[in-house]
Amino acid sequence: MTLFEEKLAQENELISQKLAEYLRSLNIPPVLNDAMKYSLSAGGKRLRPFLAVAVSQLLGKDRELVMPYACALEFIHTYSLIHDDLPALDNDDLRRGKPSSHKVFGEDMAILAGDALNADAFSILFEFGNGNFKKGGAYFAKAAGGRGMVLGQVKDCKVPEKDRSVEVLDDINLLKTGALIMASTAGAAAWLDADDPTVLALERYGYHLGLAFQITDDILDITSSTEELGKKTGSDAALNKRTYPVLLGIEDAAARATEHCAKAKETLEHFAASEWKQVLIELADFVVRRKK
Amino acid sequence: MTLFEEKLAQENELISQKLAEYLRSLNIPPVLNDAMKYSLSAGGKRLRPFLAVAVSQLLGKDRELVMPYACALEFIHTYSLIHDDLPALDNDDLRRGKPSSHKVFGEDMAILAGDALNADAFSILFEFGNGNFKKGGAYFAKAAGGRGMVLGQVKDCKVPEKDRSVEVLDDINLLKTGALIMASTAGAAAWLDADDPTVLALERYGYHLGLAFQITDDILDITSSTEELGKKTGSDAALNKRTYPVLLGIEDAAARATEHCAKAKETLEHFAASEWKQVLIELADFVVRRKK
Repeated sequence: MTLFEEKLAQENELISQKLAEYLRSLNIPPVLNDAMKYSLSAGGKRLRPFLAVAVSQLLGKDRELVMPYACALEFIHTYSLIHDDLPALDNDDLRRGKPSSHKVFGEDMAILAGDALNADAFSILFEFGNGNFKKGGAYFAKAAGGRGMVLGQVKDCKVPEKDRSVEVLDDINLLKTGALIMASTAGAAAWLDADDPTVLALERYGYHLGLAFQITDDILDITSSTEELGKKTGSDAALNKRTYPVLLGIEDAAARATEHCAKAKETLEHFAASEWKQVLIELADFVVRRKK
Repeated sequence: MTLFEEKLAQENELISQKLAEYLRSLNIPPVLNDAMKYSLSAGGKRLRPFLAVAVSQLLGKDRELVMPYACALEFIHTYSLIHDDLPALDNDDLRRGKPSSHKVFGEDMAILAGDALNADAFSILFEFGNGNFKKGGAYFAKAAGGRGMVLGQVKDCKVPEKDRSVEVLDDINLLKTGALIMASTAGAAAWLDADDPTVLALERYGYHLGLAFQITDDILDITSSTEELGKKTGSDAALNKRTYPVLLGIEDAAARATEHCAKAKETLEHFAASEWKQVLIELADFVVRRKK
């Protein structure tokens, strides 16, 4: 077990506890809470909150300071999966090995549970958070909204397949996935009052990590089974989607992911050697080597 | 023309300018911005931002301080209308006299434009706002999320018609409409660092105003034409919905609205006589007397 895997297991237990605790504190009636909880506890990798915690430790800050921010990231990520799966968007029936929200709770509830998670991510920031609202809060909201994740989803809906080059894919993915990953690294640092060069280094780390992550996702959609991945695979191919492996071939796409992984690790040269720097290095390796 | 009508006309010009200015500053590409702008500029009454501005003036604060908060309210209100109109929810084709967002931009874009408006309401707070994030921001997010407006919409979807008494309608409406109206009065006061008794007085004002508003809405759905109202009328009756006038009769429902109007005005006794107190008194009268 690598240091990263050890930390991930440790921290994710704490993160899942905190997520449950914050959700409980919000005291939302079951008629809505059940749908929010279903998707929040569907057991994803919790990569975004883990990144935020890792950044807090790299910067020598109290873990508690970043926790509301970290959990708010997971609220946003979770709502985005619920809405992406809707019939009007990707129309996916399976998510994290379980039926999608709209298959269990209906389309109306899936829309509304997503809406609640979106707004209540900010409830968590305001009610439980004591970070830098002006810098960290703004980074977070920008990444979540119409200049970040949502814009990425819009472009993914609107850009015709024939227009998709590797550059176009990079642009879409940097918004759709990358924005929230950069919010998990650079935004968390801003929330914790880090200086600008530190925020910038962590933004570059998140940039390359996000691309490495997405390229690997596209490869796994081809090489992995639905059972292994916990979501429908082969769907890109079935839709004739131009993904990285389709445009580049699997081998070159993998090489591109590895290159981004190397660049991500390079940006960490900003930081002195430490246990948590090592974790972030190993995390970059993990993102391209993972099997699901 | 009453003082309220004069101020409403004046302030709403400024509010619409500011809304356009903030949206422009966000610099969202047209592919998404067009859909956000379409609904934002569909020309509603801007009641919520106006309330926030009125509260700022009642409290003798700089109008500029409340403007980001006021416009963020309109972002939330606008997204809620877009999502409420979706086929999976109320399935309304007409809103404010124009085709609903999903009729113009498609269901996928309506979902995403709503999502962006939801998150970017908070972008506006963080980027342009300098109010009390802990109190005012928390009030705002709570009203928007799963303990406020979204919960109201969920209950409106889930509570069967046969179970709807006047008390149940009050509960649903206090969440679905009331929460954001209270955020426009009490939340704005909290954002502007008002003391607790002031916030509480304005919360009660918003509470009664919200109920008076909703009861009147239900009456107008029966007594007004689609042309006058700018949205489909008679839809409650067509769906056999138990609304206030259905449960109480039009006359008693109107009396109930008038009673809430009186109670709203009573809570303003907390404040010394002033021009803006008069505006809020006249606003309460307007809410029950309006024809659309």
